Amino acid sequence: MTTIKAYGTKSAEADLKELEIERRNILENDVKIDILYCGVCHSDIHAARNDWGNSTYPLVPGHEIIGKVVEVGSSVSKFKEGDLVGVGCMVDSCQKCSACEDDLEQFCEEGMVGTYNGKNVHTGKQTFGGYSTSIVVKEDFVLSVPENLDTKGVAPLLCAGITTFSPLNHWNVKKGDKVGVIGLGGLGHMGIKFAHAMGAETIMITTSPEKADDAKRLGADGVLISKNEDEMAKHKGTFDFLLNTVPVKHDINPYLNLLKRDSTMVMVGAIEPLEEMHGGNLIMGRKRVAGSLIGGIKETQEMLDFCGEHNIVSDIEMIDMQDINVAFDRVTNNDVKYRFVIDMESLKKA
Amino acid sequence: MTTIKAYGTKSAEADLKELEIERRNILENDVKIDILYCGVCHSDIHAARNDWGNSTYPLVPGHEIIGKVVEVGSSVSKFKEGDLVGVGCMVDSCQKCSACEDDLEQFCEEGMVGTYNGKNVHTGKQTFGGYSTSIVVKEDFVLSVPENLDTKGVAPLLCAGITTFSPLNHWNVKKGDKVGVIGLGGLGHMGIKFAHAMGAETIMITTSPEKADDAKRLGADGVLISKNEDEMAKHKGTFDFLLNTVPVKHDINPYLNLLKRDSTMVMVGAIEPLEEMHGGNLIMGRKRVAGSLIGGIKETQEMLDFCGEHNIVSDIEMIDMQDINVAFDRVTNNDVKYRFVIDMESLKKA
Repeated sequence: MTTIKAYGTKSAEADLKELEIERRNILENDVKIDILYCGVCHSDIHAARNDWGNSTYPLVPGHEIIGKVVEVGSSVSKFKEGDLVGVGCMVDSCQKCSACEDDLEQFCEEGMVGTYNGKNVHTGKQTFGGYSTSIVVKEDFVLSVPENLDTKGVAPLLCAGITTFSPLNHWNVKKGDKVGVIGLGGLGHMGIKFAHAMGAETIMITTSPEKADDAKRLGADGVLISKNEDEMAKHKGTFDFLLNTVPVKHDINPYLNLLKRDSTMVMVGAIEPLEEMHGGNLIMGRKRVAGSLIGGIKETQEMLDFCGEHNIVSDIEMIDMQDINVAFDRVTNNDVKYRFVIDMESLKKA
Repeated sequence: MTTIKAYGTKSAEADLKELEIERRNILENDVKIDILYCGVCHSDIHAARNDWGNSTYPLVPGHEIIGKVVEVGSSVSKFKEGDLVGVGCMVDSCQKCSACEDDLEQFCEEGMVGTYNGKNVHTGKQTFGGYSTSIVVKEDFVLSVPENLDTKGVAPLLCAGITTFSPLNHWNVKKGDKVGVIGLGGLGHMGIKFAHAMGAETIMITTSPEKADDAKRLGADGVLISKNEDEMAKHKGTFDFLLNTVPVKHDINPYLNLLKRDSTMVMVGAIEPLEEMHGGNLIMGRKRVAGSLIGGIKETQEMLDFCGEHNIVSDIEMIDMQDINVAFDRVTNNDVKYRFVIDMESLKKA
């Protein structure tokens, strides 16, 4: 065990502050990573505040981790000291069940091990996340980061990136498709970039007209204001795919009307009860509503490679570790374009 | 125009009674059918009573029609006098749009022409349904009925049959799959028969333990009582496909928990707002909720041929035309196993 510096909380009420945590010594299949940057995901706030009722304290958030390999176990073959790597939402899984066999570790039948607030299968202790100076992770859950990208902007790809890439990829979005991305936040801004890079006619669908310019800057070919009923009627039945990133309870019926026959809307944001869906909106046109959760390790690597090819990173605002509580408040108030990333150098110096 | 006998209503308040309606003379592509039997669909009641707000009076219900061809137009090639035929929910469509090109006339972009309460494109007048002595229909919307089946029980296949066959067929239900049919009524009892005949392990999912014996008689391998939380927990994550035939507002969340990863529940009954669906129930396991509406003419013929091969008909109770108002009340009270079929001889004699 090595004691390292981290930022976290010992209860749901407290703001985050400096803590010391233990990292296990590396096993033969492990990689030890010196953390450079860590993105701030809304889930971090939910976990720190126990909004989902499953938090164990002390809790160190952070699952959008970028760093340099500083040590590798004796059996590690994919990484070496000095490699630029990433760690996302998972650090382990059973690697034997049908989901793991299908490269979908996020749906591991024994439960994937979360990067934080999970249970480390090696130590039996809680896992701690990326708001810290270093982390030890099984190599199978470590990603290679393309060297040509702006590294700071890569951090949010490990969660916001794969969450939006995976459904577009799984549902085979392609050149010529008309794709709507609903909601412009941390997830939505990545959805626009990916759909655009995949060659789709990409439409930002938002309640906020003031977001139009930014959506176009990010790659949207058009903007549809969902409060405008005339505009919504014009687009009725024209979308091949909808990516719904809205993170709160809302009415999905107006969006279902936008879909073509046999087309799909995928929910990635709202882990909440949705307003009443009308069965007729699915039946008429044989439409589908589906869900999607991050992505498996293989697909996450594909996503990073895709970003390397298309020069895609997240739009970010850098902060010092000590500013995390202000950042949490600003995320809660939707006051960030589009993701905070912590410069972990600030924690090392402190 | 020919004046014929029918049973219908001139307003939403009135019970059905004998009327006279006009049938058009046959055009070159038309088939004139002497009606033998007509099934009683719950939609007939909704339409007669204007529950959906789109009924035009006088209204003659009936879209589960079986009869004999008595005359064919000069260009008709598929049918000849004496053929046993069926007519379902549609009697015309544009036959040019992408939906019609894909053999999905039920989703015709110009709107399919309903067998009743639709607008006849030849006469510009309202269409009248199968509660009548004869009907004239374009041959492309007439189905061949296998001669080996009990003809009376074939009538409900034209709506209840294709409504349940189509999603099982479209979503590729096959031998070895575990399929749940939710709700045992006119639709559900056909869903069990089809899923069983397709080789699936077929589980009837119902709130009513007293329906278990009948479900097994119809072909169910097992019965899951959805009110029993322990039983529901045992079946969690085990179903490859769910066919939801419940016709009223209900909570679909417990059923979503029954699905395997990447599996689908198809709604065919509830043209209603559903209770609040939890987004997390789609996101965890990448699950899907879809809709399905009857089926195209090509698939309806496939369904009838499948029934011929597997000796499948609907379980029915025969009534005379004059008993229709009692039958409507009994359908409304779920007091029928599982479909009323009108013997049209009774109307001819009256």
